[in-house]
Amino acid sequence: MNRNRMSVLLFLIVAGAVPEVHAQVNGKSLAEKLGYARDARLLIVHADDVGVTHSVNAATIKALDTGLVNSASIMVPCPWFPEIADYAKSHPQLDFGLHLTLTSERVYYRWGPVASKDKVPSLLDENGYFRHDWAATTKIDPKEVELELRAQIDRAYAMGVRPTHLDSHQYRLINGGKELFEVFLRVLNQLQPGVTEFVIHLAFADDEMKAATRERDTWGAAWRQRDFDFFTSREFRQLLQDQNIKLVTWRELAHAVLQ
Amino acid sequence: MNRNRMSVLLFLIVAGAVPEVHAQVNGKSLAEKLGYARDARLLIVHADDVGVTHSVNAATIKALDTGLVNSASIMVPCPWFPEIADYAKSHPQLDFGLHLTLTSERVYYRWGPVASKDKVPSLLDENGYFRHDWAATTKIDPKEVELELRAQIDRAYAMGVRPTHLDSHQYRLINGGKELFEVFLRVLNQLQPGVTEFVIHLAFADDEMKAATRERDTWGAAWRQRDFDFFTSREFRQLLQDQNIKLVTWRELAHAVLQ
Repeated sequence: MNRNRMSVLLFLIVAGAVPEVHAQVNGKSLAEKLGYARDARLLIVHADDVGVTHSVNAATIKALDTGLVNSASIMVPCPWFPEIADYAKSHPQLDFGLHLTLTSERVYYRWGPVASKDKVPSLLDENGYFRHDWAATTKIDPKEVELELRAQIDRAYAMGVRPTHLDSHQYRLINGGKELFEVFLRVLNQLQPGVTEFVIHLAFADDEMKAATRERDTWGAAWRQRDFDFFTSREFRQLLQDQNIKLVTWRELAHAVLQ
Repeated sequence: MNRNRMSVLLFLIVAGAVPEVHAQVNGKSLAEKLGYARDARLLIVHADDVGVTHSVNAATIKALDTGLVNSASIMVPCPWFPEIADYAKSHPQLDFGLHLTLTSERVYYRWGPVASKDKVPSLLDENGYFRHDWAATTKIDPKEVELELRAQIDRAYAMGVRPTHLDSHQYRLINGGKELFEVFLRVLNQLQPGVTEFVIHLAFADDEMKAATRERDTWGAAWRQRDFDFFTSREFRQLLQDQNIKLVTWRELAHAVLQ
């Protein structure tokens, strides 16, 4: 995706209208545009939150190496962004997007805006970090949102990242808990024709990640280790093969839809 | 130390004159003011860089628990500051100071100013982080230094830290390498009367710390694990006892000198 196309998507996101990938493009189905049969079942296995900790970076890189996780998005304001930016720069074939970030949701480990704090006061808490979350009553200035998102995209480009897609942090929750494997298996066994995205959260349940997420289990260290274990497993690979599910990337989608 | 006294020290540091603790106070030696014999050998074992990573925080807390490391200073701009601020707030008896920070010296893991970026441009690199280091030719605006240091102190107070002392990041290097234990032992065996400070750098050589410091060995993960191993060892405790070396804190010094 080039920067002009990204600007269009950015405006849509700032306006609250996350762009949908339509199933029909110029009379052809999206699957056909991507070079597959009309009723092909296509899957993006997408790792969120890259850059947030070293543990997330290490688990994501290891998962991408298996080929079973084939797309990921990066949080530019986070302390470990330079590590993954360096990796993305030296692996330009990989499908890295930007995980646009306007909150800092943890308690013991935090980050703030890329833009100058004076320019984005509505996004900040009393200590100068991003807010933990946004309530219905939180007054956010949309101009400050746009300024901050542009600053994140500018830093990503300046540090060598060429993102294939944009998505946003802390707006989706597919599932969690002990029956996660069974849920994944059921969804995969019943996958419908067209393109489906699994949004997963990878990390190792190591000391850093346990400490960074220790105030609650949601998207915590154990949860992320379970995602890693399932989506890099032989069972997942076998299931894709048995069900004839093909992996596609945001880069391929952008090429098919936006060209 | 109260905030007015801290302001005095802050001005001295901004002006480049790090305040010295004089051996003579009102005719009494500092050791006497501290309640010891005139020729007592007093030692502060001081852990730097707290807040920089979870690994540093965890190692420092464990070392403080032994009583053999008895003072530490905190880096407010770093991502793991909230974790150690919470700990300092709930352990007000401990001797925590602020490790005033104007650089972000690593490659894959970085941080920026507490002040608004627009207000401190001379402290920033092209990506909005603190500079990796300062060369003789680097043009730094002293007013921006003062503004940033005040912002760090303000955030520390706002988040519950009551610092007993101030020092500065990246200006001292006592030693390193494989013969570190022998150097420590030699210095301790030859310790002179008066107050000596050992500035040490603690962390565990775990995945987070190895990744955060992997571009060079200086102050790296292995170095910090060695500091931890020595200064929490039975040998060090025994040596303090054999040599009749007493541990004192910056809190006690501030009380003796500034009261």
